[in-house]
Amino acid sequence: MEKQQMEALDYHAEERRKAGFDVEEMKIVWAGSRKAYEISDRVARLVASDPVFRKDNRTMLSRKELFKDTLKKAAHAWKRIIELRLSEEEATKLRFFVDQPVFTDLHFGMQIIGCYAQTELGHGSNVRGLETTASFDPQTDEFVIHSPTLTSRKWWSGGLGKVSTHAVVYARLITDGQDHGVHGFIVQLRSLDDHSPLPGITVGDIGMKFGSGAYNIMDHGVLKFDYVRIPRDQMLMGVSRVTRQGKYMRSDVPRQLVYGTMVYVRQRIVASASSALSRAVCIATRYSAVRRQFGSRNGDAETQVIDYKTQQNRLFPLLASAYAFRFVGEWLKWLYTDVTRRLEANDFSTLPEVHACTAGLKSITTTTADAIEECRKLCGGHGYLSSSGLPELFAVYVPACTYEGDNVVLLLQVGRLLVKTVSQLGSGKKPVGTIAYMGRAEHLLQCHREVRRAEDWLKPQVIVEAFQARAAGMAVACAENLNKFPNQEDGFGQLSADLAEAAVAHCQLIVVSKFIEKLQQDIPGKGVRRQLEILCNVYALSLLHKHLGDFITSGCITPEQGVLANEQLRSLYSQVRPNAIALVDAFNYTDHYLGSVLGRYDGNVYPKLYEEAWKDPLNETVVPDGYHEYIRPILKQHIRVARL
Amino acid sequence: MEKQQMEALDYHAEERRKAGFDVEEMKIVWAGSRKAYEISDRVARLVASDPVFRKDNRTMLSRKELFKDTLKKAAHAWKRIIELRLSEEEATKLRFFVDQPVFTDLHFGMQIIGCYAQTELGHGSNVRGLETTASFDPQTDEFVIHSPTLTSRKWWSGGLGKVSTHAVVYARLITDGQDHGVHGFIVQLRSLDDHSPLPGITVGDIGMKFGSGAYNIMDHGVLKFDYVRIPRDQMLMGVSRVTRQGKYMRSDVPRQLVYGTMVYVRQRIVASASSALSRAVCIATRYSAVRRQFGSRNGDAETQVIDYKTQQNRLFPLLASAYAFRFVGEWLKWLYTDVTRRLEANDFSTLPEVHACTAGLKSITTTTADAIEECRKLCGGHGYLSSSGLPELFAVYVPACTYEGDNVVLLLQVGRLLVKTVSQLGSGKKPVGTIAYMGRAEHLLQCHREVRRAEDWLKPQVIVEAFQARAAGMAVACAENLNKFPNQEDGFGQLSADLAEAAVAHCQLIVVSKFIEKLQQDIPGKGVRRQLEILCNVYALSLLHKHLGDFITSGCITPEQGVLANEQLRSLYSQVRPNAIALVDAFNYTDHYLGSVLGRYDGNVYPKLYEEAWKDPLNETVVPDGYHEYIRPILKQHIRVARL
Repeated sequence: MEKQQMEALDYHAEERRKAGFDVEEMKIVWAGSRKAYEISDRVARLVASDPVFRKDNRTMLSRKELFKDTLKKAAHAWKRIIELRLSEEEATKLRFFVDQPVFTDLHFGMQIIGCYAQTELGHGSNVRGLETTASFDPQTDEFVIHSPTLTSRKWWSGGLGKVSTHAVVYARLITDGQDHGVHGFIVQLRSLDDHSPLPGITVGDIGMKFGSGAYNIMDHGVLKFDYVRIPRDQMLMGVSRVTRQGKYMRSDVPRQLVYGTMVYVRQRIVASASSALSRAVCIATRYSAVRRQFGSRNGDAETQVIDYKTQQNRLFPLLASAYAFRFVGEWLKWLYTDVTRRLEANDFSTLPEVHACTAGLKSITTTTADAIEECRKLCGGHGYLSSSGLPELFAVYVPACTYEGDNVVLLLQVGRLLVKTVSQLGSGKKPVGTIAYMGRAEHLLQCHREVRRAEDWLKPQVIVEAFQARAAGMAVACAENLNKFPNQEDGFGQLSADLAEAAVAHCQLIVVSKFIEKLQQDIPGKGVRRQLEILCNVYALSLLHKHLGDFITSGCITPEQGVLANEQLRSLYSQVRPNAIALVDAFNYTDHYLGSVLGRYDGNVYPKLYEEAWKDPLNETVVPDGYHEYIRPILKQHIRVARL
Repeated sequence: MEKQQMEALDYHAEERRKAGFDVEEMKIVWAGSRKAYEISDRVARLVASDPVFRKDNRTMLSRKELFKDTLKKAAHAWKRIIELRLSEEEATKLRFFVDQPVFTDLHFGMQIIGCYAQTELGHGSNVRGLETTASFDPQTDEFVIHSPTLTSRKWWSGGLGKVSTHAVVYARLITDGQDHGVHGFIVQLRSLDDHSPLPGITVGDIGMKFGSGAYNIMDHGVLKFDYVRIPRDQMLMGVSRVTRQGKYMRSDVPRQLVYGTMVYVRQRIVASASSALSRAVCIATRYSAVRRQFGSRNGDAETQVIDYKTQQNRLFPLLASAYAFRFVGEWLKWLYTDVTRRLEANDFSTLPEVHACTAGLKSITTTTADAIEECRKLCGGHGYLSSSGLPELFAVYVPACTYEGDNVVLLLQVGRLLVKTVSQLGSGKKPVGTIAYMGRAEHLLQCHREVRRAEDWLKPQVIVEAFQARAAGMAVACAENLNKFPNQEDGFGQLSADLAEAAVAHCQLIVVSKFIEKLQQDIPGKGVRRQLEILCNVYALSLLHKHLGDFITSGCITPEQGVLANEQLRSLYSQVRPNAIALVDAFNYTDHYLGSVLGRYDGNVYPKLYEEAWKDPLNETVVPDGYHEYIRPILKQHIRVARL
């Protein structure tokens, strides 16, 4: 037996002893409530202990095996949910911990399997550009769904390729030759008897995607319609409808209602960002405490890489971001219920601000993709192995930057609201919600921060005002530059890169503010609030350092104050260091869910890495397939050739 | 037939007509010389037309098929090189365009296949920490190679797992119980008769890595020694040797000679950075001209996404970086010949500076990994498909950030030289080479940039001095902060994040300077120099905008000058726009080498995307494997369960 394998099995025990706060209480803060924690904990263990949910072999499966494995897990999850009579919350958690998103996540409990077919081969974010047509035929009281061009084919819908029996298809509604724009239609795609595609339907998978496992588990699909007929009542007639005579009528239902769904979806995306980021950070933090490199003197052990300031400077801001995104996600849940309540009461006053806020938060929290990749690099060479879990985590997460609104497109929506708000400041219209501070723009830009020593940067008020002044300054500068253009739309196009930067500043302010608001709540548990205060400061000051040019140019801080902020940041790292392992333990992830040899709870990394390597199919034989055809001739024939 | 497929087949023809410079002459500038261009062009076509070198199916192969495919291509490349009697330069180009790195790249023309076995499971960048031992046995005149611990096992060596017959093994030399540190030993691993591992050797593949194709084509290996005996003469005795009696002796050969190899390797890495980056930029630029989104009025075509400023603001600095890295790589080739000449003449005076310079340039040019990922995002959803070529390009490129010296570790070496140089400024010792400007640090930091209008930022002198002042300012600040620590090493650790930032500033200055120096050479061809001037300015000003905080804090520019730089940058984008397609055509990549449906020369993207999708194994049947076991029960049984 290996020497290492025989040693006691918690390499992180000493790290855990060092923690200066109550980890169990922090777990509850992270989960959101004691009840949420208990459910999450119980369901995570349930999934981890079930051999059907095993996922460590995913990257070694072929595409077909991988897809079948997904089907198997989906069916098994469905079975377990029924057998155990899980509540909706428990069932959602179960699917979350299975960590292999499938069609049943969306359509559980139906007798059909459905998907949304919106984007087309040639059309993504711009829904108005869709080409698929749904022409009403008054003779038969049907819509005829058709794909008139190659670029009109539906493309990218999850679950469409192989699984779905039905789709909500977005198509241009045509009545009597008139185009009424894009509407939704329920279309059956496959027979419920034998799953074969119905006449006029061509459907398939769009092929391999980023990574080896990742989203290759799912059948994103392509779909072509060849004059497919559906009954009139399969049009989604919530917002508008078509009469028996083929007359197009808009309903009285306010169009703003669709924003409710959008807020919901984006709130889910922000929640996923904190999950994915915390997972990557957990792996990188634990491995950074295991890995040792350089710094050995007189035969001592080398230094744990987590003790290097360069490692801390890259890792700890990401750890802080995981918490920051968690809390802003929690607040978005509240915002969703608030906006739903208002919509029900026909109060649309907060919608523009809420819409921009969720769009912007979706955009800045999905920078998690870069953060996962940074965590992977922080694990050095071994982070490049699939068994580290990080390559697949990156590949499966990164589409979040593109789907549900490309991040740059979303930031420009925020940018538009910002300059509009600035332009209305004189009119007496008072900005609300997360943009209310803009009403004090003039004051913010004139007044100076009270920062003379590094510690002054620890005051929440100082931080919030610096972020407010920066965001306000950038928005005001954009609005002023915009006024120089005779045509506003033209100016908007020319200045769009600046507008996107102003939007980032505004959204980072929101995240910082919500973190600070969280700290004003009642937080029990020894040392828990203190740790969160440190993380909040790390989050804010690392952003300030990264975007220092913005802060100084807006005139809201001096270069000297920027230097002090960096000094303070450095000293905060030393306070995070002894608590780092406990801070990632608080996420309460099982080794199954983490899916990473490097991130193992017990830190027993090296024997497991070695063990994993031997499972590769290439190691089934010591002499590789191809030796006789390709290697041996090179070794043997060279002499002969050289003698020619 | 599809409407689109029947249209004329150069969708970029109009873009190509718009170019304001001679593309053929630019191709020569890019290649380095007319001869280099001709060889590259001829060999690229040769590879592209050979069906054995087909690679579009790589992401669909299993690990074993993928590896066998590599062996097949390696053997075929070797055969073609001999049959066609290719020169060394041609053969190198051939292997480059095959785009599937294999063992023969390193060992062509030997009767053995060798690899380097240095890093171990527990030991990466820190060579001094290696644990493998080579103990001299004077009784038999042999070394005994042994892996004493789990963490001592060799790990990561390319070609080690399945192919190599021999390895250069780095191990601690022990004579008579005394440890002389790490030395190299040639060890035979496998039988030359049947390729089976020799007694005492355990060798295998380390398993799946990032991506589906990518480096999974190669057998990175694990290797364990169980007291393996080799003759004494298999120690590499260039620098030191062991006598028959077991006496350890250092030779007179200067140790600095190893730096020559290091400079060579890093110069190759910088050259690869420009290749990988230009490839990604070529794909993203061409697709950005094909893809249209939003902006349609009255049924016109939508706007090409390359016309959006946000797209230009992300894409054009990367296009400029590709050229910048190309030219600094060219200069590094010269630096390598210069340093080789000096080493032969026992002149080691330039070594510290050259060593730091190549380390730093390796580090900052491998940010190409992030740039590839940005190019992928610039292609929207379709960039996530393997057929875009970008996921695999990212996955195969990204280890460059880690291998041959982790990027952060390398930056700290540069940082050390910078603060050392600053501390010696008073002593009269004059800094040389790329660090010579530091001799004028005081002057640079006192004098102000002559920038009053945006156009002033187009002057090379203004740009270079701003970059010099920024780098000098950051180095001086680090040196001053370092002096506050009683213990220099302790201070170095505490300030390491700042030192790494100063190093980045210094290295970016080198790239900017070398680009400007290139422009001072004779550059024939209509409009070619003009285009390069624009790109040089885009490169420099985009960096200035990104690191504005550094520039202002160092006092070298005012916030107002920073705003002017951004204005100038924006107007440069409009000058790049009409030339963008021609600027990537100048890389002269074949569609085979690009390996991207989105980056096709003819822009005929959509029909090919559609065609590629159907090749996925999942599309072999319309009803997927697993339907009867997992999908049908969900569709059919739900009713029964729900009635329970």
